[in-house]
Amino acid sequence: MNNMPIIVPQGFRFSARAGGLKKAGKLDFGLIFSETPANCAGVFTRNKVVAAPVQVSAPRISEGLCQAVLINSANANACTGERGLQDALDCGKILSRSLDIPEQLIAVSSTGVIGVPLPMAIFAEQIPLLAEELGDGSAEAVAEAIMTTDSFPKVSSRTIVADGRECRLLGLAKGAGMIHPDMATMLAFVVTDACVASQFLDQSLRDAVGHSFNRITVDRDTSTNDMALILANGEAGNQEIAAGSASADAFSKALREILLDLAKMIVRDGEGATKLVRIQIDGAANNDDAMLAARSVATSALVKTAFFGEDANWGRIIAAVGYSGADVDPDRVRILFDDIPMVEKGLGLGSDQEVLATEILKKQEFTVTVDLGLGQGSAYYYTSDLTYDYVRINADYRT
Amino acid sequence: MNNMPIIVPQGFRFSARAGGLKKAGKLDFGLIFSETPANCAGVFTRNKVVAAPVQVSAPRISEGLCQAVLINSANANACTGERGLQDALDCGKILSRSLDIPEQLIAVSSTGVIGVPLPMAIFAEQIPLLAEELGDGSAEAVAEAIMTTDSFPKVSSRTIVADGRECRLLGLAKGAGMIHPDMATMLAFVVTDACVASQFLDQSLRDAVGHSFNRITVDRDTSTNDMALILANGEAGNQEIAAGSASADAFSKALREILLDLAKMIVRDGEGATKLVRIQIDGAANNDDAMLAARSVATSALVKTAFFGEDANWGRIIAAVGYSGADVDPDRVRILFDDIPMVEKGLGLGSDQEVLATEILKKQEFTVTVDLGLGQGSAYYYTSDLTYDYVRINADYRT
Repeated sequence: MNNMPIIVPQGFRFSARAGGLKKAGKLDFGLIFSETPANCAGVFTRNKVVAAPVQVSAPRISEGLCQAVLINSANANACTGERGLQDALDCGKILSRSLDIPEQLIAVSSTGVIGVPLPMAIFAEQIPLLAEELGDGSAEAVAEAIMTTDSFPKVSSRTIVADGRECRLLGLAKGAGMIHPDMATMLAFVVTDACVASQFLDQSLRDAVGHSFNRITVDRDTSTNDMALILANGEAGNQEIAAGSASADAFSKALREILLDLAKMIVRDGEGATKLVRIQIDGAANNDDAMLAARSVATSALVKTAFFGEDANWGRIIAAVGYSGADVDPDRVRILFDDIPMVEKGLGLGSDQEVLATEILKKQEFTVTVDLGLGQGSAYYYTSDLTYDYVRINADYRT
Repeated sequence: MNNMPIIVPQGFRFSARAGGLKKAGKLDFGLIFSETPANCAGVFTRNKVVAAPVQVSAPRISEGLCQAVLINSANANACTGERGLQDALDCGKILSRSLDIPEQLIAVSSTGVIGVPLPMAIFAEQIPLLAEELGDGSAEAVAEAIMTTDSFPKVSSRTIVADGRECRLLGLAKGAGMIHPDMATMLAFVVTDACVASQFLDQSLRDAVGHSFNRITVDRDTSTNDMALILANGEAGNQEIAAGSASADAFSKALREILLDLAKMIVRDGEGATKLVRIQIDGAANNDDAMLAARSVATSALVKTAFFGEDANWGRIIAAVGYSGADVDPDRVRILFDDIPMVEKGLGLGSDQEVLATEILKKQEFTVTVDLGLGQGSAYYYTSDLTYDYVRINADYRT
């Protein structure tokens, strides 16, 4: 997937284990540990049904310091009531004792089936072993341990130079489908050895999530367990990066690139997906309208099935723009598949162009551009095609 | 289907023809004619890309009088620019001459492929023949002529008594999928011999559409050509029904029943659908919240694939309620499949209940009730399952 070498920030250690939550000896527990307490920030699901680990971790992260993140797959610990909340707290307590760090510096995160209590005997056994086995190089193993319906682990990294110091950023994510079903879905963890002020970390993370995870869709459902965390432990020795610092833009840009890498991997790994399509809206009355239009096209089941059918069906695209809520004057709409114009001034350009566009649709990655011809607003969204396999995976998931 | 006999209101005549727009000699032109100008009302697509026939008919209908409705399938006359608008006007002119009635009393309606000009030579030939062949009994033939991907014609009728006079209402509709792709989709025409004031007709139609067509979903896309019209010619001889009249409630109720019949037929005939599912939300903080939650569950691709898989996957339902925007306290949520409780106070009731619920899911029609336990708000929505055939039909549609 990503052929770039993984760069691991200093002062972070990882471990992963197969504890038996998944079948066939697959990795299902992961631990991320910083040798010193790290500044942190987090973005959490806006679903009103919030899983226990999110309830436990969100207030801790908001305090601005974190040293360890415990993650399990196969069980979301969602819709598990008081018992689920106690279980999430107990996971933190066990890890706190094993690592000899305060409970408040521990975040817990779960993904998997909803509505089933955690098998705490397994957790009690595995957590101390995870702590014992912390090592330097197993970030990829953690990325693998957090997978559910994912077909490949998702890792991306970048380096920036701040005050002459090399700072490393490393991101891990899981998700195949914006949500998977009664699987709680999108998790992302970024660690960096840059020294970054908590407030700026929060601002950069929100901005980067807004330009990545909030611009992808596989099936528009959002999960009870979604979580994106960043930990910055300052081991690189740079001066603290804050808003307006010389390195602030470089840091934000690197973080945005990592999350966009991960987001695109998630779409490419979308359940049953065979294509990664960028929906680019230009010429909207404003950026909000552009987002509405981009989201509408990206989430249309009819557009997504047409992509699967490799059908240059611009009628579905213009209809999706029309009902998006964005300001639209059909007579000004221009549509391109990569660089092939299909529609000018709201009218189709005919079958020759359709033949050319159909060649574009055969590619695994392409861009659909809709220029509304009204103003300067623009936005993008990444989406996948809707396939037989999507239906198969989601109809058969629990059976 | 509907096994009830079709009741045809007095003073209406119908004709339908196979003009060659569809293949294999299938009916593709329909004409509805009232012997006298009828009071009328209409509801039109809110898509900002509006097909030419809607642009022509909406202002005419808003004048409150209509005598004839010309409908064709196979070509939507949408995204066809100035030429399309002129073609829609010309269809009306030809019919005006053939029937010897004013152009302003004619509505035109089209459904089919987007972006292709109408073959006007065929229209010029067929329209006079439709006018010549007007007869009493071919309402079903008109229902068949307006079909696109529909697998059966959709007709429903009711009788009410007003001032001792029998009044008849007859509705026709097409649509298989809230939209079909670059097919423009949902059309409905109701004719009645009741005498009804235009303003009350408008009010009743909007209310009935709000409780029927606006509460169904197959794939959430809405079309450039959607249109629902009602014509009331007063041939029954009752006193004019207006807001507050003795028969006002009976009329509104009959109209609502007809549109709900038609709406349910559309969902049952949804592209690839094998199940008709009522999503019932009770106990919401208010009715608006209930609608948000109902729509969210009804449109979730994950919920719809679970129905197809006959998987009693309440986790997906509670997640869809959670991200709907409605006020939700997970600890109060109760979920039933027909009368089988699956979730109480946000917690699953275990595998015995799942076995019972799975039996419900094997039915072709069932109800999922979500009680939010917060207040008195309630709402319903009808949806279908999401199947392999949905993907097949929509991926292959134009090829």
